[in-house]
Amino acid sequence: MAKITAVSPLAPGAFPALPIIDGVTFATAAGGVRYQGRDDIILAMVTPGTAVAGVFTTSATRAAPVLDCQAKLGGPCDAGAAILVNAGNANAFTGRNGIEAVTAITTAAANACNIPAERVFTSSTGVIGEPLPFDRITSHLENLASSQDAQGFAAAARAIMTTDTFPKGAGTTVQIAGRNVSIAGIAKGSGMIAPDMATMLVYIFTDAKIPQAELQAMVAGHNARTFNCITVDSDTSTSDTLLVAATGASGVDVSGDLAFSDALHKVMLDLAQQVVRDGEGATKFVEISVTGAMDDADAKTHALSIANSPLVKTAIAGEDPNWGRIVMAVGKSGAAADRDLLSIRFGDVVVAEQGWVSAGYDEAEAAAHMKGQELFIGVDIGLGEGRATVWTCDLTHGYIDINADYRS
Amino acid sequence: MAKITAVSPLAPGAFPALPIIDGVTFATAAGGVRYQGRDDIILAMVTPGTAVAGVFTTSATRAAPVLDCQAKLGGPCDAGAAILVNAGNANAFTGRNGIEAVTAITTAAANACNIPAERVFTSSTGVIGEPLPFDRITSHLENLASSQDAQGFAAAARAIMTTDTFPKGAGTTVQIAGRNVSIAGIAKGSGMIAPDMATMLVYIFTDAKIPQAELQAMVAGHNARTFNCITVDSDTSTSDTLLVAATGASGVDVSGDLAFSDALHKVMLDLAQQVVRDGEGATKFVEISVTGAMDDADAKTHALSIANSPLVKTAIAGEDPNWGRIVMAVGKSGAAADRDLLSIRFGDVVVAEQGWVSAGYDEAEAAAHMKGQELFIGVDIGLGEGRATVWTCDLTHGYIDINADYRS
Repeated sequence: MAKITAVSPLAPGAFPALPIIDGVTFATAAGGVRYQGRDDIILAMVTPGTAVAGVFTTSATRAAPVLDCQAKLGGPCDAGAAILVNAGNANAFTGRNGIEAVTAITTAAANACNIPAERVFTSSTGVIGEPLPFDRITSHLENLASSQDAQGFAAAARAIMTTDTFPKGAGTTVQIAGRNVSIAGIAKGSGMIAPDMATMLVYIFTDAKIPQAELQAMVAGHNARTFNCITVDSDTSTSDTLLVAATGASGVDVSGDLAFSDALHKVMLDLAQQVVRDGEGATKFVEISVTGAMDDADAKTHALSIANSPLVKTAIAGEDPNWGRIVMAVGKSGAAADRDLLSIRFGDVVVAEQGWVSAGYDEAEAAAHMKGQELFIGVDIGLGEGRATVWTCDLTHGYIDINADYRS
Repeated sequence: MAKITAVSPLAPGAFPALPIIDGVTFATAAGGVRYQGRDDIILAMVTPGTAVAGVFTTSATRAAPVLDCQAKLGGPCDAGAAILVNAGNANAFTGRNGIEAVTAITTAAANACNIPAERVFTSSTGVIGEPLPFDRITSHLENLASSQDAQGFAAAARAIMTTDTFPKGAGTTVQIAGRNVSIAGIAKGSGMIAPDMATMLVYIFTDAKIPQAELQAMVAGHNARTFNCITVDSDTSTSDTLLVAATGASGVDVSGDLAFSDALHKVMLDLAQQVVRDGEGATKFVEISVTGAMDDADAKTHALSIANSPLVKTAIAGEDPNWGRIVMAVGKSGAAADRDLLSIRFGDVVVAEQGWVSAGYDEAEAAAHMKGQELFIGVDIGLGEGRATVWTCDLTHGYIDINADYRS
């Protein structure tokens, strides 16, 4: 069972005020799928014509609801659609039973919402390998469909938490052609106290009008530089799901509009960084920026090699400006590097230049930077123009406590 | 500074009795390169005609002595040769200074041993980024060369330790064509208490007679299934070096001899497993065997993905038969897998079959296996004939203590 835990020291002060998204409503319910005394089911409904885009875990062992969602993206969107999520049971590695459970809840949701089952997108998060008690979900669907409310973001963000220590939300409103377009989303992920596997779920809504294919391409592109650039412990969930629903209710066509694309990127990055801030046992939020790689892909390989290195992450936990471990992580990444061209800095402090410790390096200055809660590690490879930025947290006793010391 | 630490609970009872290898002698000295009050330099000398083979870290940021060794392999072996190792300073990421230090010590060793500098192989292990104070080594070389002793394995194994908690040795004698051929070797690695990067050094000697090219191929092949199949924390050193010297002094030609190849493999595997048993903070020794993958490469990718997963390693530390995390690690590895064909067992306990928890699974039996100190995790992918076995240890508070809580 999850133990009571303090909120992450990296948590934002409060859940943000999010704009209402025209064409989107929510309801939550306490189904008792696993947790007692809290909501654990959300049903979001969107109006006919809503374009739904999504990206999902690439795991070869992904869960039944993920496979179902993937099959449904890109279908006709003239009907309304629904997003149904439960916390407490991931319906993963449940064989034929998993598919039956998905069919049961999507059929029941379609009936309750009066839409085709092909427009019901579901996610499940929580323990794996246990059959989903789907009757605890289906029995609430009529009520959920009839008690929808546009003000539901905060309650929904709370209802999808498993071992998260705070609910995660982000939103923005931009002016396009003199009219308001709003984006708001919620996420869960990365706090893991019962020893289940980490799952990350993200739902973003906008009243922008945009063709599904264009939205899908935009979401995939932004995902590569936001959610796919965060890591807590290098372990990839079987259930990761990001869905973006554009209702078009603002009447503002954002096709090809860079302001909308930037706004969506900003919301996605905010949510992604909140997941890192709720990383298991995290006490430091770390931005790692690699420049000068042969290409952007090599830069990301180097950056993730640094971000996933247990030796780098423990050094950060120990507030140790241990640049030797950065050199090690670059060297092992498999991407091109030349030891004698490397430069490394912690915050504004240049630590190493051209393959050796910098002439003016003052360890006390670097150590002072490492004592902060928000850290920056910059690495220039010195070979080309490739660049990438990723975000991670430190590896602490808290991670061991959460994942080894407490049994489910 | 290194803190005093208990010997690993997984350490063997005592340093093994190793056979004397005809044609090989040792001496050790206390140079004070970094440590005080202990030997930290070894000079091993081998007779003319000795074939020297080696494999090294593939890090793109590898250290100066590694580059020097790589350049020297495969040269003419009619002269004698020497292996010179120091502990306390890795001479890594030291730019031009690193090359100058290697030149200084190899030249001095060549003079002291009366051999060409091209036959002097050096390794350095310890802190990185600090210039190697090479005069603390060169000043001992005449004495080291004139005080050689065939009985030096145990002292040499101790002299190359940095933060290891026990000296590592292995050897065997096999009968080939009615005559004895002996193999003996030493290794260091994986205990890391001062926050330097882990380095692994291995030196193996035999009196077998074998051409260098054949020895090199044999060593590379065995390395792929021994040292390249162990992992403590997924971080790759800049200094890893394995050298095998065959003096030929037994007069037994082992070309094409499977008994010799098997014996060498056994010694390499023994040393590799000792490195895991001295893994930072380790309390469990874990064998992970993957079968049924599409090919052997895929099997190794799956096995290492399991062995390197922080969630799997913390579950092992917590004695939790958490097969969901095994499914996760297989799914994220990138190698081919089908969720619904997976089978998993812990020891003799079949946990999951064909994509779901096994019908007769008894969690108490699996939990009992996990309480042991020597664990087995078997995964059958169900797709083909590929197989691989790797060895690792758990991820504990001890790892965090060693790498985060104490500064150099």
